[in-house]
Amino acid sequence: MTFWKITLSYDGTAFHGWQVQPGRSTVQGMLAAALEQMTGERVLPQGSGRTDAGVHALGQVASFGLEAPIPAENLLRAMNRVLPPSIRVLGAEIVPATFHARHSAVRKTYEYRIFERRVVTGAGEEERVCSPFVAPYAWDCRWALQMESMQEAAAMLRGTHDFSSFAASDPDRTQREEGTAAGPNPVKTIYVSEVKREGGLLVYRVRGSGFLHHMVRNIVGTLTEVGRGSLGAAEMARILAARDRAAAGPTAPAQGLFLVSVEYEDLGETQ
Amino acid sequence: MTFWKITLSYDGTAFHGWQVQPGRSTVQGMLAAALEQMTGERVLPQGSGRTDAGVHALGQVASFGLEAPIPAENLLRAMNRVLPPSIRVLGAEIVPATFHARHSAVRKTYEYRIFERRVVTGAGEEERVCSPFVAPYAWDCRWALQMESMQEAAAMLRGTHDFSSFAASDPDRTQREEGTAAGPNPVKTIYVSEVKREGGLLVYRVRGSGFLHHMVRNIVGTLTEVGRGSLGAAEMARILAARDRAAAGPTAPAQGLFLVSVEYEDLGETQ
Repeated sequence: MTFWKITLSYDGTAFHGWQVQPGRSTVQGMLAAALEQMTGERVLPQGSGRTDAGVHALGQVASFGLEAPIPAENLLRAMNRVLPPSIRVLGAEIVPATFHARHSAVRKTYEYRIFERRVVTGAGEEERVCSPFVAPYAWDCRWALQMESMQEAAAMLRGTHDFSSFAASDPDRTQREEGTAAGPNPVKTIYVSEVKREGGLLVYRVRGSGFLHHMVRNIVGTLTEVGRGSLGAAEMARILAARDRAAAGPTAPAQGLFLVSVEYEDLGETQ
Repeated sequence: MTFWKITLSYDGTAFHGWQVQPGRSTVQGMLAAALEQMTGERVLPQGSGRTDAGVHALGQVASFGLEAPIPAENLLRAMNRVLPPSIRVLGAEIVPATFHARHSAVRKTYEYRIFERRVVTGAGEEERVCSPFVAPYAWDCRWALQMESMQEAAAMLRGTHDFSSFAASDPDRTQREEGTAAGPNPVKTIYVSEVKREGGLLVYRVRGSGFLHHMVRNIVGTLTEVGRGSLGAAEMARILAARDRAAAGPTAPAQGLFLVSVEYEDLGETQ
């Protein structure tokens, strides 16, 4: 048996998320089907975390074992031949049997992209049109956003906190981990949490030890409340302390979210 | 009756081309449905030309008349509220009744984007993976391409020529115009025909008085034959002179093609 770690990128638009579901097209299901077509083996690749429907990945990581002996270069090419162009394997390497894409992950980085439909200029508020080529990969946000207050609020999330206020409120899924193998622990360490303007978009970038279900989208929904002036930046401390989903803002739409990279202890960064 | 000229951008991925077809989602059909929903009027917007299934537009132009009196700013906003995010109206202006998006067009510009999967470096040939975010908007071309010979061949198309060799071979559609109102005339004037590397892609840009059906994709299919060394650049003159579709290369895939802009005599460029 050979154990594999693959790094992959996908456009989440056409998939019902990562996790395999009967009768629905999912990333995990497409990978399993590709491996079965290539080797005849039925394996279910384990992802570093499940991404929801519509969420994209630049550097998702998955692990699985195969009986078939395949050189790494051939595995990558063969998978890319069988998979649709919306899923690409960017790298493949052989790893020890103890490696697990989710359990072994130590840090993950996400990016959330916002198109600012309303921009305040010297001449007043200007309304812009979100290009059809940007729309599937960003939130076409209808409010004018004040970036500086969003930056201030984002910075307050750095460090180790209980992120229960930003966990999905669905009772079945509240404690479901998107991030690491640390168990249903709402305490996470955030290393990077920043807002920038890049390529005409407002980009929120966050790197942490792990993420609760919907955590990044709930943070972004709260940051935009700050950006449009409905919440003061300093409110972020109160929201964190509340440990209550009701204290935070709404969930930002899925299509703006990208899983950028996953880091592992000895294996280095994946993207 | 008010006569309108709108400029629009669309991601052609999900549409069966421009032209309205029963039971199929097309750009023209979506525009007609949006206008009917907004005004109750049944009008069929006329495009500057029909784009095929999978072809994109950055600056397509359409014209139509409406009985309803609507300020230009409102028409744009109302259409964008009703249309899917994959079609966006970028501009709307009132024009004389004599204006017709196709008949009045004097020049059109297209761009064709190629992802070079194989790149020759000092260390030999390298195989790259086409990102899922590029794949719907480029041809993932499996041959190593020699840009200089493509540039040489592209330059030979400038000027006024009979482009029958690059017209669709389908007998029903050979003479169908994509471009102007000049009638089924295979003689076109090409002002710009150049190949460049831009943003990691090989881009062919062409501006002309009009284009026959499949003309740009057939030119690109022929240019890649030159780029991969199957045809000499100088063969372009022989292919043009042959006035025979069989002399040229294959039709490049639809998803790499973008209608960039359409120009009109008194109205200036549309993009």
